[in-house]
This record gives sequence, structure tokens and C-alpha cells, in this order.
Amino acid sequence: MTRTILSSATKEITIGFDAPFCVIGERINPTGRKLLSAEMASGDYSRVKLDAIAQIEAGATMLDVNAGIPLADEPKILAESIQLIQSFTDIPLSIDSSIIEALEAGLSVYQGKALVNSVTGEEERLEVVLPLVKKYGAAVVAISNDETGISEDPNERFKVAKKIVERAADYGIGREDVIVDPLIMPVGAINLAGRSALDLISRLRNELQVNTTCGASNISFGLPNRHGMNAAFLSMAAGAGMTSAIMNPLHSEEMHAILGANVMNGADPECRRWIEKFREPAAAGSEGRERRMTRRRAKG
Amino acid sequence: MTRTILSSATKEITIGFDAPFCVIGERINPTGRKLLSAEMASGDYSRVKLDAIAQIEAGATMLDVNAGIPLADEPKILAESIQLIQSFTDIPLSIDSSIIEALEAGLSVYQGKALVNSVTGEEERLEVVLPLVKKYGAAVVAISNDETGISEDPNERFKVAKKIVERAADYGIGREDVIVDPLIMPVGAINLAGRSALDLISRLRNELQVNTTCGASNISFGLPNRHGMNAAFLSMAAGAGMTSAIMNPLHSEEMHAILGANVMNGADPECRRWIEKFREPAAAGSEGRERRMTRRRAKG
Repeated sequence: MTRTILSSATKEITIGFDAPFCVIGERINPTGRKLLSAEMASGDYSRVKLDAIAQIEAGATMLDVNAGIPLADEPKILAESIQLIQSFTDIPLSIDSSIIEALEAGLSVYQGKALVNSVTGEEERLEVVLPLVKKYGAAVVAISNDETGISEDPNERFKVAKKIVERAADYGIGREDVIVDPLIMPVGAINLAGRSALDLISRLRNELQVNTTCGASNISFGLPNRHGMNAAFLSMAAGAGMTSAIMNPLHSEEMHAILGANVMNGADPECRRWIEKFREPAAAGSEGRERRMTRRRAKG
Repeated sequence: MTRTILSSATKEITIGFDAPFCVIGERINPTGRKLLSAEMASGDYSRVKLDAIAQIEAGATMLDVNAGIPLADEPKILAESIQLIQSFTDIPLSIDSSIIEALEAGLSVYQGKALVNSVTGEEERLEVVLPLVKKYGAAVVAISNDETGISEDPNERFKVAKKIVERAADYGIGREDVIVDPLIMPVGAINLAGRSALDLISRLRNELQVNTTCGASNISFGLPNRHGMNAAFLSMAAGAGMTSAIMNPLHSEEMHAILGANVMNGADPECRRWIEKFREPAAAGSEGRERRMTRRRAKG
């Protein structure tokens, strides 16, 4: 039973086969967001704060923080964003950068056990990212591509994941601290991408015994009704053994699919979260209850 | 690769591991429907016809036909309903009764290869239903309970399914003509019912190599937002290997989950059905296209 423990200064969460699906909020990312980009570059983190709060309220388990802005001082902006977020919430964070100095700047200010997003199977990445993950006692997202690119063959992607897990072990990082991203391809471009992703997720869980994650919305790229397709993918992936996803928790279709998958996986005891989310307002509202009680009292 | 072929006089459909999920419309069933019950008992099949048409238009692959009305002449009503439905549509039918005379009356008028719904693992049922299935060259739904009732242990349910498949073989009915219903329990009452159903579906597919079906809406009994839970269950069940369900095709949440699962399973080539269903009206409507063409012509 593989469990990845992540934490802030005061809160611990578990990603695992027997835990509710971990929703890693993806919104704090300036890629493709001009306004957020400009604000973060100028040291204005008001929108970062709003995005963090909105995602937490929508049910995120963790937040991914990315500060990849061309020509900006990414290490400084990433560290400041993390400090700002940790000043008002205890939700654990994923530190997201392809620049090693930015990862280190983020890790050096982070309070708790962070998730480093990410390392690939490329030698030069393994050699710099894994020592950093070990130094700061973090966990890491392992993306299953290497120097040869992204293979369309799921067996090749499995091999790359296995290699990263083994290399992590060489650095003293256990498999419970390596969360594999099997790389989800758009099913609109590669018709069998869905089935092969589900099969790969099963193998990663059963054979390699690792937690898994992915950029969930990739699956629906180029298709109409993307939220509907993301929802089908997420519940099926959770059924096949995927334990987390980097996604937008503000989209209710996807979140409902995950709440449903938690129930189906036995990860929502007595369906409490499902019932809390969906019970009829008339039965749930304290106002309604009070009115009925008042009526009864009036009759008595 | 197990394939169950069912047919009407002029149309054949396939239930199988590589086929789109088979939606068996459940609406033609007087249980709990007073008006339909009274009409069918009096020989008025107008609502049966409307229900058939509505389900076909909503995307049903097959229709289940049940005429279980207390004190009524079920064999006659079932046979007449089937003849009526086969007079205006070529969709294959599932003949649904617990009364052997009704099953035989339905089979004797049915044109094509029907699905008999159902036989259990009880000796006295096996001995009367299986010869009938063989006699009429039909396929059969095998419900995984026996004299001892419905076991909560998935291993017991698997054993009962295996026994029915073996008994069917003794009668010359191949495993491709036995569709196992693993019996879906409400997840609101039995917290692990979802997970154990998914695991059982996988085993039925991989070990017993049979197609599977179920009464899908059982899963959500007693819970709020039943359609949302049914949708999560259906996509996850299809991901785990379930190939059909007896369900209400008029509910769009469930149908969208199945369309998504077909894409994810590689059973919707080039995502054609998904795109056809969900593309923007502006791009899809011939009216829109014509207007644009007219404008272009006007400019030229």
C-alpha cells in the first residue's frame, strides 16, 4: 500500500491507493495568462492569492505553483509566491518549474514536505533534480519521457518510469516519494491514447507500485465538450488506479467525477462527502430544519 | 475476444470487448408504472411504442421488454409487446421475465436472435431456462446468485457466474452467449460495493472471458444526485471491462459518461460519435453552413 505524505507547516495530506483522489490545483501558472504574468513579474501577488483561495474552496487537496514567465526572475517570483501562499493557507504545495534554480529557491523557503514538479528520465535532469529532492526531503513528479522524447509505446513509458524510480532509490528517495506522470496524450489525435493510458496507469500501480498523476485536461485537447471528456477520463483513470491529477478544481463536471470515483473506490466512508455535496437544500439547510421544528412546536 | 451477436430480422448488433458499450433501454417495464401497467393489461401498447421510440432516439442499442403485471396474462402481453415493437423498429430486444411461459411466448414470436433476461444459478432455473435459450438460439443474461441468495463475497458471485457458464456449455450454449450480471449493490448501503463490483467485472472479463451487464441505477439507490453517481459508475465499469448495462437512455448524464467511456476505450473511431454529439451548433448546423456559403457567394 503506497502512501505519499506531503505537508505544509501544520497540515499533512496523503496520496495513496486507499486515500481519496488528490486534486492538485493547476491555476497558479502564468502560462497563457497575460494579466497574471504581468502582475507576478511586477511583484503583485493579489491574483495568486485569489486563485489559491478559489481553488481551495472548490475542493483542491494541494496547489501547484508555477512562475514560468519569460525574461523574469523566476526563482525570486516562485519563492515569493510560495511564501505568500503559505502565509494564509496550510494547503501543501507542488513546486513547479523546469529551472533548477527556481526549484531550489522554492524548496528553500517552503515550510513542510513539498512535491517537486518535475523530473524526467533524461540523465541531465535526474542528476540535478533528484539530489535537490533528497536534500529538502521532498517528493517528486516523475514524467515518463527521456532523451528520446515521448514514446507512443506504453511499454517504453513504463520503462522510463521504472528507471526514474530506480535512480531515485539510488539517491535514497523511496518509491512512495516518486509520483509517476504517464503522460496523457489527446485522444482526439491518438485514438487509442485513452485505453493505453488506463492500462499504463494499472501497470504503474500494480507492478511498479507507485502513485500517479497527470495533466488531466490533455486528454480532451481539440475535442468539443472537453469537461465531459475530462470527467469520463478522470473517473476511469481513478478506477484504473490513478491517485492524483493536476487539474482545474473550478470545473464542477470534473470534480463531480472525482467525488463519484472516490465513492466507487471506497474512499468516501459512508458516502459522507458525496451526500454533503449533493443532498437537497431542503433537507440540509438548518433554516429548513428550524422552520419544521417551529411548526411542530406551534402544533404541540 | 468475446463477442455476443444479437439481432432482429434485419439488424445485427455486437456486444463485445472491442465494441461500443451496449445500452439496453430499461423503460418498457410496468413495474412501478401504474398507467403503463393498466394500459398493457388492457392490450393498449401505445405507450410501449412511445417508450421504444424515445429510447431508440436517445441512443439505445437494444431494448429490454418486460410485461410483469400482477394477475395479468404475462405470456400474451409480452408476446404482443414484442410483435408490436418488431413491427416498427429493427432494434434487437431483450425478453425479460421470471416466468418461463412468458419467456417462451416471447421467444416463439421473436424475429432474430434475442437476449433472454434472465437465468440465475438456481438449479430449477438453470434446468428450465437454458434448454429454452438453446431451443431458440438465443443468448442469456446470467445473474450471479443461487439458492443461497446473493452473496456479499465477490468470490462467491464469481463462482456462481462460472457455474452458469459451465452449465450453459453442457446445453451447447457458448460463453459468448452468456452475459453475466454481477449484481450491483447500492454503494450507499455497502460502502465497498463499488470497488468490489469493479474488481468482479475485471475478473469476469479477464478470467471467465464473458460479456457483462447490470441494472446500473442500483449503484446509486438512496443517494442524492443519482445521475451523477450512475455516470461515474458507468464510465468506471466500462473502463474495468463491462460491456453493456440495462439502463435509462433518456438520462443524458449517464449517456455522456458512456460516450466518453467509448472514446477512452478506443471504441469510438476518430471520436466521430463524440464529435457528432457535442460539436458546436454553429459548426454543425447545415443552416449555419449555408448562411456562410451564401455570404461568401454574395461577396464573390
